[in-house]
Amino acid sequence: MITIVETCIYAENLDETIRFYKEVLDLPLIAFEEDRHAFFKCGKGMLLIFDPNHTSRVQTEVSGSPVPLHGAKGENHIAFSVKESEYENWKQNLIDNGVAIESVVKWPNGVDSFYFRDPAGNSLEIIRGDLWNLGNEKKT
Amino acid sequence: MITIVETCIYAENLDETIRFYKEVLDLPLIAFEEDRHAFFKCGKGMLLIFDPNHTSRVQTEVSGSPVPLHGAKGENHIAFSVKESEYENWKQNLIDNGVAIESVVKWPNGVDSFYFRDPAGNSLEIIRGDLWNLGNEKKT
Repeated sequence: MITIVETCIYAENLDETIRFYKEVLDLPLIAFEEDRHAFFKCGKGMLLIFDPNHTSRVQTEVSGSPVPLHGAKGENHIAFSVKESEYENWKQNLIDNGVAIESVVKWPNGVDSFYFRDPAGNSLEIIRGDLWNLGNEKKT
Repeated sequence: MITIVETCIYAENLDETIRFYKEVLDLPLIAFEEDRHAFFKCGKGMLLIFDPNHTSRVQTEVSGSPVPLHGAKGENHIAFSVKESEYENWKQNLIDNGVAIESVVKWPNGVDSFYFRDPAGNSLEIIRGDLWNLGNEKKT
């Protein structure tokens, strides 16, 4: 069985976007290379943010092996899950930081989520609890 | 604390890409909408694949609320983790399916990984065990 350990998004305004994930979303910064990337720990996985103008063009190597080129432009989407008891606090935290709530959705199974954007325009969503019935979120 | 529950990639050749994740990577298909998306369960999270020509242009609604537009073009990156004991089997499985191994890397902490592409050109990586010391992979 494979599990996702690195989720990537792209930001051409890398510094501003890094600040958002660090200061507003409160993620611990694990690695940083100026004008190339910032890697954050996010729960049991990693959130990697790259400048696509760098990673799609500049070949890097690790121990003599190439790290394949990648990089996308446009708006990516990530959904985050939070405990039910922390959901309203997260929404208020974003509003307090001047982040616009773009949409609030009630999914057919009754689970709530809301959408907002990072400074690169990526579409982010915070879900109250376990939308997908994955069994990895406590209800309180 | 927020955790990632939906990781997204984009594919303009959606049907071919869906087949790859279903048949070669052996992920369970949870939801499908023709010409728009396929959602797969992947460990404790979801892997969502969208046609960016649809999701960046066609507004959808859930219970009267808009689902914000998103969609990126280019090559995204996802890294998957597998148990150490399953790593070589995964590499052989891909080779047996005619998938080219683009690079094999030994990271500074000794952890191995290899890279390949999905039919949309997204850069995928399979890591042997716990590269990031996240503590969520058993060693055997």
